[in-house]
Amino acid sequence: PIFKIHKWVPWFGLISSVFAMFIINPTISLISIVIVLMVYWYLSRQNLETPFEDVRSGLFVSFAEWAAKHTWGMKKMQQRAWKANLMVPVRDVNGLRGTFEFLRNIARPKGSIKLLGIEPFTEQSILARQLEEISASFRHKGVFSSSTVIHTKEFANGINYGSQALQGAFFRPNILFLNLQDHDDYENELKPVMKESIRLEIGILLFNLHTSALLGQRNTINVWVSNRKGNWQLEGWDIGNLDLSILVAYKLKMNWDARIRLITVVDNAKEEANAKNFLKTLISLARLPQTMTEVYIGTFIEMVRKAPPADLNIFGMKDTLPYDFIKDMSQKTSSSCLFVRDSGHESILA
Amino acid sequence: PIFKIHKWVPWFGLISSVFAMFIINPTISLISIVIVLMVYWYLSRQNLETPFEDVRSGLFVSFAEWAAKHTWGMKKMQQRAWKANLMVPVRDVNGLRGTFEFLRNIARPKGSIKLLGIEPFTEQSILARQLEEISASFRHKGVFSSSTVIHTKEFANGINYGSQALQGAFFRPNILFLNLQDHDDYENELKPVMKESIRLEIGILLFNLHTSALLGQRNTINVWVSNRKGNWQLEGWDIGNLDLSILVAYKLKMNWDARIRLITVVDNAKEEANAKNFLKTLISLARLPQTMTEVYIGTFIEMVRKAPPADLNIFGMKDTLPYDFIKDMSQKTSSSCLFVRDSGHESILA
Repeated sequence: PIFKIHKWVPWFGLISSVFAMFIINPTISLISIVIVLMVYWYLSRQNLETPFEDVRSGLFVSFAEWAAKHTWGMKKMQQRAWKANLMVPVRDVNGLRGTFEFLRNIARPKGSIKLLGIEPFTEQSILARQLEEISASFRHKGVFSSSTVIHTKEFANGINYGSQALQGAFFRPNILFLNLQDHDDYENELKPVMKESIRLEIGILLFNLHTSALLGQRNTINVWVSNRKGNWQLEGWDIGNLDLSILVAYKLKMNWDARIRLITVVDNAKEEANAKNFLKTLISLARLPQTMTEVYIGTFIEMVRKAPPADLNIFGMKDTLPYDFIKDMSQKTSSSCLFVRDSGHESILA
Repeated sequence: PIFKIHKWVPWFGLISSVFAMFIINPTISLISIVIVLMVYWYLSRQNLETPFEDVRSGLFVSFAEWAAKHTWGMKKMQQRAWKANLMVPVRDVNGLRGTFEFLRNIARPKGSIKLLGIEPFTEQSILARQLEEISASFRHKGVFSSSTVIHTKEFANGINYGSQALQGAFFRPNILFLNLQDHDDYENELKPVMKESIRLEIGILLFNLHTSALLGQRNTINVWVSNRKGNWQLEGWDIGNLDLSILVAYKLKMNWDARIRLITVVDNAKEEANAKNFLKTLISLARLPQTMTEVYIGTFIEMVRKAPPADLNIFGMKDTLPYDFIKDMSQKTSSSCLFVRDSGHESILA
């Protein structure tokens, strides 16, 4: 940094030579620039490995950082350009391997997956390496992913501190994905994490895989719309805790090539027409092609067992996150279930 | 997403119209593109506030995210394009206000500052808002910054879990900045945090502000080079725990318009020439213009008191992070002190 030149010298050179090029022969100049860019793009696809940093990588990284810094303030409102940025706490690598394809299909193609390993500190731990391998595998299969490990004995606190810290990150996770397994302690481990996510305005996906049916043929997705009890008008943009459910269903529909079925249960026959109308309007405003609808009369508990079979059932979750509702649902529906809580920042109508 | 068109349709349109433009009149085309870009740049500088998301912001954010994702793998080796990405744990907002300018001068212009508030959870907490204001103030003054708050009673664990989580972030902090204040418990709070930073390969800056002299005139920075006891050859790129000290001194030199003085203390007169030579080679290879050097014969403790005065003294810290070394140093030197531990990824010679 000893040899000093004025800032305008390189700029002047750049502008004047580009100008000269185009004045001499515009068509060839344009073609030559396109060729340079294409060679560059081709080379960067080859993933050349160098043992040390080169000028190119420094330039690219600086440019990416510049872009990230300058769009920081714009990231607040992203309803239209919604992407699934998942945060996935992992204690058990096998559980993660089992949900690999499911996560990938929720995030693909523009979302991201942040793996957050939770483990007490040991010297010979291989969790960090295992997660990094899975993360690389996500990246290789077209979904951006990164991983990190938090060393702690307290599962809930580790995740909560981690997600608080990531509030200030560039790829801020907007969905927490929890895989409900038999060894999980719902009240003391999962519930505090979900409560904190609600406070931080992060959406929640709680997944319960059916032990034998798994995700079946990936053909049909049932989305359960709660009984709105007379409030069947679609006014404004607030449709309750339903946006994230439909967004996730839509992502899976696209990536599985499946069909969505919206189901609602009403108390009496008088409401049936209103409910049908509501679902029809919703499908039209949310631009969901080829979606089936069903309106049943009866009680929810009864209809869950009678509803047409699906490979995945998606339910909304109440604020109180009751375990009663969740625990037997995958047996009752004979399928895998996904319980969803909106962050409040999603909008299916946007 | 109902109306489908093939991907090549917009591309074909774009390429063919740009082509036609340049064939018709190349010079005017080039000028018009430059004008469009300049209008765009001017408008984006105006910070127009819109109550809802627009297409422009979605486009920019998507582009920045694309760039960030594609440079992810390149971020490993960044010795040449080193930037100070500070992580600053904050318990006491006034302490942070006192170091505002100092932090800004270390990071400016390309670094970043991540404020990590640590506080037990209360309903009426205003820390998050205060930190966000300071963060906005950093951004306004040309240094990128973001803030987040971790709600915990355990200072050390909160920071450690936070910094572990941020290992997977795009702006991964590479320096932990700790402001040593009277109310801090060094052994139980600061030391565990520094130990964890060493494990995570994050550099450490421990700052001790002189209570009355503060940062003085910001004219002179003393950097203490440890006695290398015979090993005065500069071989390879490893110069020990000295890279980050010199990098920080260089940043402050540029932003304060100050001078650096490299000081080393040797045991006997025989080594004096070697030490002088070492400092001279170091200055030349690290490209540090206008740097003074001093070589003293005697003991370190004695010479710390006798050394020429400076507004800031920078010392390296041993792995064991002994408190004896740190506690009285700002009285002994009658100046503010900065204790530095390399992450191992900095290189002043790169």
